[in-house]
Amino acid sequence: MNYTLLANQYRDNLLNDVIPFWLKNSADPENGGFLTCLDREGKVFDTDKFVWLQFREIWCFSMLYNKVEQKQEWLDFAVQGAEFMKKHGSDAEGNFYFSMTRQGEPLIQPYNIFSDCFAAMAFAQLFKATGNQEYGDLAVRTFNNILSKRDNPKGKWLKSYPGTRELQGFSLPMILCNLVLELGDLLDNDLTESTIDHGLNQVMEVFYQKDLGIILENVRLDGSFSDTFDGRLVNPGHGLESMWFVMDIAERRSDPGLIRRAVDITINILEYGWDKEFGGILYFMDVKGKPPQQLEWDQKLWWVHMETLISLLKGYYHTHDQRCWDWFEKVHKYTWEHFPDPEHGEWFGYLNRRGEVLLPLKGGKWKGCFHVPRGLYQCWKTLERIAEKNQEPRTKNQE
Amino acid sequence: MNYTLLANQYRDNLLNDVIPFWLKNSADPENGGFLTCLDREGKVFDTDKFVWLQFREIWCFSMLYNKVEQKQEWLDFAVQGAEFMKKHGSDAEGNFYFSMTRQGEPLIQPYNIFSDCFAAMAFAQLFKATGNQEYGDLAVRTFNNILSKRDNPKGKWLKSYPGTRELQGFSLPMILCNLVLELGDLLDNDLTESTIDHGLNQVMEVFYQKDLGIILENVRLDGSFSDTFDGRLVNPGHGLESMWFVMDIAERRSDPGLIRRAVDITINILEYGWDKEFGGILYFMDVKGKPPQQLEWDQKLWWVHMETLISLLKGYYHTHDQRCWDWFEKVHKYTWEHFPDPEHGEWFGYLNRRGEVLLPLKGGKWKGCFHVPRGLYQCWKTLERIAEKNQEPRTKNQE
Repeated sequence: MNYTLLANQYRDNLLNDVIPFWLKNSADPENGGFLTCLDREGKVFDTDKFVWLQFREIWCFSMLYNKVEQKQEWLDFAVQGAEFMKKHGSDAEGNFYFSMTRQGEPLIQPYNIFSDCFAAMAFAQLFKATGNQEYGDLAVRTFNNILSKRDNPKGKWLKSYPGTRELQGFSLPMILCNLVLELGDLLDNDLTESTIDHGLNQVMEVFYQKDLGIILENVRLDGSFSDTFDGRLVNPGHGLESMWFVMDIAERRSDPGLIRRAVDITINILEYGWDKEFGGILYFMDVKGKPPQQLEWDQKLWWVHMETLISLLKGYYHTHDQRCWDWFEKVHKYTWEHFPDPEHGEWFGYLNRRGEVLLPLKGGKWKGCFHVPRGLYQCWKTLERIAEKNQEPRTKNQE
Repeated sequence: MNYTLLANQYRDNLLNDVIPFWLKNSADPENGGFLTCLDREGKVFDTDKFVWLQFREIWCFSMLYNKVEQKQEWLDFAVQGAEFMKKHGSDAEGNFYFSMTRQGEPLIQPYNIFSDCFAAMAFAQLFKATGNQEYGDLAVRTFNNILSKRDNPKGKWLKSYPGTRELQGFSLPMILCNLVLELGDLLDNDLTESTIDHGLNQVMEVFYQKDLGIILENVRLDGSFSDTFDGRLVNPGHGLESMWFVMDIAERRSDPGLIRRAVDITINILEYGWDKEFGGILYFMDVKGKPPQQLEWDQKLWWVHMETLISLLKGYYHTHDQRCWDWFEKVHKYTWEHFPDPEHGEWFGYLNRRGEVLLPLKGGKWKGCFHVPRGLYQCWKTLERIAEKNQEPRTKNQE
């Protein structure tokens, strides 16, 4: 296996295909911000601005500037997006809307706390890139706002009746594990460590089910199983994504035991979520094998596969566990055969169970400039680290 | 074509398969109400009670009692459901919740006005069956509550920001066209006629697009087109269903011109929504051919096909338009080859684009004892009327 050649494949797709695609097609110089609803060829098919995707694109170009190359074009692209969002993105209390018109008028109220999560992530990366304290302050203020809303993230838009069935969701603790690392030095070290402690405990002890080897999307407040549609729900991609967040934390804490646990969970979820009939990873499953509520349960989504590749490579880098490499080869093959569009560039996002393109878009309400470039970057860099490690004598490093 | 044989097929499926399936499997004698989450064999796989489906089952058994046979078992089944809902189903202001636990504790707040629509429909049929004035009063009170909430049906759970983009939806005016006929004598005749006038105008002049020959799901408050995800959305099944509501109104008003318009629209929508590649009617489309937001857009749903069969048969009965019969044969063939489960009875609800079973359930969060039995009843009776008409000399009736 030539790890360097593979690393180059991920790097080249990132730098020569995906990033140019978004630079070329998603700019909105007249209004600022990004147009993310792009058809197969990259043409804009809708002009609404979804806040998750605005911030994710700001994050992406700032991250590339910080980590790959200090290209002015990338920084300018990120800054104009951030200025648009600073001006239009939030209500007076600093809660970020869910969507806006092309001009920046609010469309959907700030009912969704992940808008704030991606805002904090984006402003933090941009602070690193620019040194502009205003972005740093916005990142910290938004992060604190997330913590204050943590116990009731939907606020007055919560539709469940108080007290009857209170469940906690996996998404927020999972994202917080990644977000604290993203914010880095902007946060007081005690807050970072306590947030990590809490997040790790939630992911590894509360939502991870030891008996089943998988992660549930929703559990009761006391951590117990809820035999309901929400309680039975498994989103394999979510669990798989969270495992590389955990590995990053474990690396920071030099905790090889935690990495080994994350690798075992990665392999378990993947064996569970892999579609034995048509290949690829299923989108939603019911842990008791009952019919899931989600009609899209059997579809194959780009982000699920991309996030899985990251976890497998990080797991392999840290542990040299052969299961990681074998699964990486299998998921890599499926992913590259099905998602990238050889004709018009970038990746398809939504395939049906058979792996045929279900929606030909490159960007929409949920798919933007985020999972593909972040995943390509992470896989590229992790493959480089694996290549480096493998040129050294095995006895020294892996045994 | 032997219309009587076809009528028998619909009747037999209703009385010997579908109704026994729900009587046998959906009872919850301990708590009252119905268990609607039933797997392929009819076994309960979830016990939550979804308010739409509770009222739709009450309506169904009351309707059969009123129109098919005064079976005490059917009436008892409806009454116990209604008593459960009377006790547990609404808040103090008479707004019906969206869902409840098996025991009747509220789970999801009354954010959804269609819970109230199905409540009014159910209480009205049950009033007809029992003469119990309490049910009649509940039907009227709920109907008035719907009218008072009509301009802001989601109330405080509305997530769109006020003033930026105000759209009106097709579902409510469409259902009101059916609901007023269901309530019949319970309403003052002036209110019935003015509600019909308003609903007909909304359906035929505002949401129906003359230039395209189809119906949009959402338009601006002034009726104009909104080039947005919501504005471009087409739900062919909704449009097709609404056309038999319009034909029923046209029959009541002895308006053959309106029937002919409804037939033309039925045929147009069906030609538009029919999947030329795999057969069946698509679930969602984008009127400009852009990628729809709904990942389930290409699936084939039971209710879409059932409602279409009703509109085609009513159209054929009233106009003898050959297009109605030709399409009926095509949709009938697709429907009976794909949806009924020959092994365990009742109908599958959700097929993938290829017509393969996507979810093996017979009932869930959205599918209950409603579209299949209502459709079987309507088709049975309309085929009987067609059979009667055809035994008379053609010269007298059709020329």
